[in-house]
Amino acid sequence: MKFSPLFWPIQLKGNTIYILDETLLPQKLSYIKAKDYKQACRAIREMKTRAVGQVLLVMYIFLQLIKQGRQNEIAKVANAINATRPTLSFKSLTDMVLGWSKSKAPLEKCILGFLEGLKYSRIKQAEEASKLIKDKDVILTHCNVSGLLPLIGEICLKQNKKISFFATETRPYLQGSRLTAWELKRAGFDVTIITDGMTASVISQGKVNKVIVGADHLALNGDIANKVGTYAIAVIAKYFGIPFYVLCPPASGLKSGKDIKIEIRPDIEMLEYQGLRLAPKGVKGYYPAFDVTPAELITKHIHLEIKR
Amino acid sequence: MKFSPLFWPIQLKGNTIYILDETLLPQKLSYIKAKDYKQACRAIREMKTRAVGQVLLVMYIFLQLIKQGRQNEIAKVANAINATRPTLSFKSLTDMVLGWSKSKAPLEKCILGFLEGLKYSRIKQAEEASKLIKDKDVILTHCNVSGLLPLIGEICLKQNKKISFFATETRPYLQGSRLTAWELKRAGFDVTIITDGMTASVISQGKVNKVIVGADHLALNGDIANKVGTYAIAVIAKYFGIPFYVLCPPASGLKSGKDIKIEIRPDIEMLEYQGLRLAPKGVKGYYPAFDVTPAELITKHIHLEIKR
Repeated sequence: MKFSPLFWPIQLKGNTIYILDETLLPQKLSYIKAKDYKQACRAIREMKTRAVGQVLLVMYIFLQLIKQGRQNEIAKVANAINATRPTLSFKSLTDMVLGWSKSKAPLEKCILGFLEGLKYSRIKQAEEASKLIKDKDVILTHCNVSGLLPLIGEICLKQNKKISFFATETRPYLQGSRLTAWELKRAGFDVTIITDGMTASVISQGKVNKVIVGADHLALNGDIANKVGTYAIAVIAKYFGIPFYVLCPPASGLKSGKDIKIEIRPDIEMLEYQGLRLAPKGVKGYYPAFDVTPAELITKHIHLEIKR
Repeated sequence: MKFSPLFWPIQLKGNTIYILDETLLPQKLSYIKAKDYKQACRAIREMKTRAVGQVLLVMYIFLQLIKQGRQNEIAKVANAINATRPTLSFKSLTDMVLGWSKSKAPLEKCILGFLEGLKYSRIKQAEEASKLIKDKDVILTHCNVSGLLPLIGEICLKQNKKISFFATETRPYLQGSRLTAWELKRAGFDVTIITDGMTASVISQGKVNKVIVGADHLALNGDIANKVGTYAIAVIAKYFGIPFYVLCPPASGLKSGKDIKIEIRPDIEMLEYQGLRLAPKGVKGYYPAFDVTPAELITKHIHLEIKR
């Protein structure tokens, strides 16, 4: 099985965490070296890594701490991690590690076991998704699902199903162009970029026949939070009667999507691109980083079954 | 009445046509000087002006021709104009002028009369739109409606209705940020930019309660063609039950939206922005410049009644 660099974007070598800098893709495939948890937390805050990369990074931060013999700082580090981003709740992860620590479990072994289980579960998840796909399907996606789409494509190929992709560019950070189109093309798949506004156009023309997106958050009632723009695509997929599948993370403890706190990011991030001003000076923007898609618009949740 | 520079972006001074270069906005408010119809047609092809600007430019090209004493070239010039853009049909305009010419009507007077009528009709159209608006409404718009929105806002103010706006940035050309947000802010209105993917998010949150867009084409059955992304907003507005109003041009002779030919533009225009590469090299894009919104998604057509 080949994996996209985005499938497992964090590594621990010696005492240093290597973090794939997703903001430099596709121009540069390079890793940030984090010598301690503060440097690693900064990478989370600055969105150098995202989605599964953040989960991995949290676990590798604790692993690094153990290797550095600073196990007594676990609670402080857990707090620092929890404070990095408002929308993404790291609390269940940090609580899990704190729980292991309190119960005197072999911490390193527990973390390594969790990571091994996560890898296995993600491959299983891609296999589950591949069962929903037919030969010649054209999949529309939004943002980036951290290496899962090339993996799904590869599994489909083994099942003699050849599929292709449309990726929204996903403004303002362009994860669709920079990450998804990059990793799909790199893996040999046919991929076409559209702007975020073209979804109704391409679906109405029959150019795509299924939607697969990821999710940053899954509530207990099946509502999901994902990169802003996902909700629009779900509404449009429903209107045109094509399936809308979600590759989900484990469910959080929140009851419904209404309980998910949406991070509002600085509007400068959408009004400028790489220092280039896109909008008139003095005009304001509104940038909710995520939106909540209600369960009733989701054809099927493709769950991540974590084995522990 | 104050007018946005985009309300009447073409002028004829002496023998020279002045064309507002909309591609340089909002950084620079400058005009291209066209000494003859070839220079003017190039400005159409290069999308230096759009929508009503193109209609005005067609008429000013003929006016310039008359002033240059080259009235015998009318048929050739009409052909050159018709060939500039595939989606926008200039044929009804050029046929009208050719008809006046053949019937030996006083051509200059006819054209000036048409332009006067167009101006009057556009103000009337803004007045019609203002009747649909209530105090404190927040209007979502897409792309740019050539000065009509600030005019609608001004008319509303005179009726003691204070309204504000959300504008999609409208990728890839960013007419929403560069033109709509610019002209609305310039006229003193509160305007907020969102990316094209955020429409479902802001509508679901109740941040906007009405949609008003323009159209490049109106078919006889009420289907419209407008900047790509319009169809998606129409579907979303329907889903959330908010009105979707269209400021229409005169109906063309086409029966339905299916008969409207959609211009597919070079993908480089969406994969690069001002020379900055947004997508990985070698990845392709698909760029339909317009999409067709079916009549059943349109709450009300706000017609342009041309008086001749």
